[in-house]
Amino acid sequence: MKHYGFFRSSAAFRLRIALNLKGVAAEHVLVNFAKQEQFGDSYKSVNPQARVPSLLLDDGTVLIQSLAIIEWLDETHPNPPLLPKDAKGRARVRGLANLIACDIHPLNNISILNYLRDKLQVPEPARNEWYRHWIAQGFDALEALLADSKDTGKFCQGDAPGIADICLVPQVFNAQRYECPLGGYPTLMRVFDACMKLPAFDTAQPMKQPEAAFIK
Amino acid sequence: MKHYGFFRSSAAFRLRIALNLKGVAAEHVLVNFAKQEQFGDSYKSVNPQARVPSLLLDDGTVLIQSLAIIEWLDETHPNPPLLPKDAKGRARVRGLANLIACDIHPLNNISILNYLRDKLQVPEPARNEWYRHWIAQGFDALEALLADSKDTGKFCQGDAPGIADICLVPQVFNAQRYECPLGGYPTLMRVFDACMKLPAFDTAQPMKQPEAAFIK
Repeated sequence: MKHYGFFRSSAAFRLRIALNLKGVAAEHVLVNFAKQEQFGDSYKSVNPQARVPSLLLDDGTVLIQSLAIIEWLDETHPNPPLLPKDAKGRARVRGLANLIACDIHPLNNISILNYLRDKLQVPEPARNEWYRHWIAQGFDALEALLADSKDTGKFCQGDAPGIADICLVPQVFNAQRYECPLGGYPTLMRVFDACMKLPAFDTAQPMKQPEAAFIK
Repeated sequence: MKHYGFFRSSAAFRLRIALNLKGVAAEHVLVNFAKQEQFGDSYKSVNPQARVPSLLLDDGTVLIQSLAIIEWLDETHPNPPLLPKDAKGRARVRGLANLIACDIHPLNNISILNYLRDKLQVPEPARNEWYRHWIAQGFDALEALLADSKDTGKFCQGDAPGIADICLVPQVFNAQRYECPLGGYPTLMRVFDACMKLPAFDTAQPMKQPEAAFIK
């Protein structure tokens, strides 16, 4: 099994956490965004969308999109589970995960930031404000949803980490990198801290990946 | 069961299709975006994220995020299934769905277009170009993924409609509304046409919703 990723990609970070939690080994293949390798023919023959992560299975099947891959991992390697057993709990966790994966993260993707810079000539301070705006808007909602629910435990859902936590942690890393104020999110940050105590999350972080040593 | 939606929302459109395919009746509650009702305290007490759709269950549970709701619907009302039975097939369908739901649709959401207009003073032609850019980039990948796979049938996966088709159709509606060139996507448009022959898709379209009669 091969995991195509890049240390700074939040979506690849999610998959690294999930693989760690499941104890599944996958060979890491670096797609070097600093060299625009994602747009090369070699990688586009793996994933025509030119994004990471992709997971190449031993039979040659390629899976794309982090959440689709993580659901596959959860179905094929059920322990420990990353989703609750009951349908309502699963809907809650998927809802929290999608709030991040659909309504925060895509707006701050590198391709969007480059478009703002190159096509729309948006200067850096306004690009940073854009970045922080979508995080604040999403985290406001997320904090309300977490703080108001009896389903929130040590983690987003109960006392074991799952798909919502897997999306939350890389998004908090992005928020910290862009110096977003996080004081208004005590529940969210409590969950983040609990996650970061687990080696599965800690060792998946960008600066602990091999390529962090030689790529800025 | 109550379905909070708005006729022009693509995410609400997805849920309308899914409810139709499942034959599940839910009372439609209009959240009038033209009056900014999504930001009112009344709706924010239902969904703090101030987006549609939301699904209020009879026990008072609120589900948010279209794909999370549709997965819940598929788990609780299994027939007809909206995902294949095998894990790889499920991963493929979820990957196609997420390509649209994460990497195309959020970039063209009304809140983003308003930000471009109001905060960044991007003029209308450049906003329209932005809109078309993300659709073209996503549809290029989607066409390659659909055209190259033996799993593609009459629909995105085989010969029955599922979650990928449910995401595709509203996105094509958006593309048509913004006059995106669609000639380069024969497979994608063939699937779209097959979907639109089904009443579940046809009757869910924006202009066939009650509020289309009185809201522009």
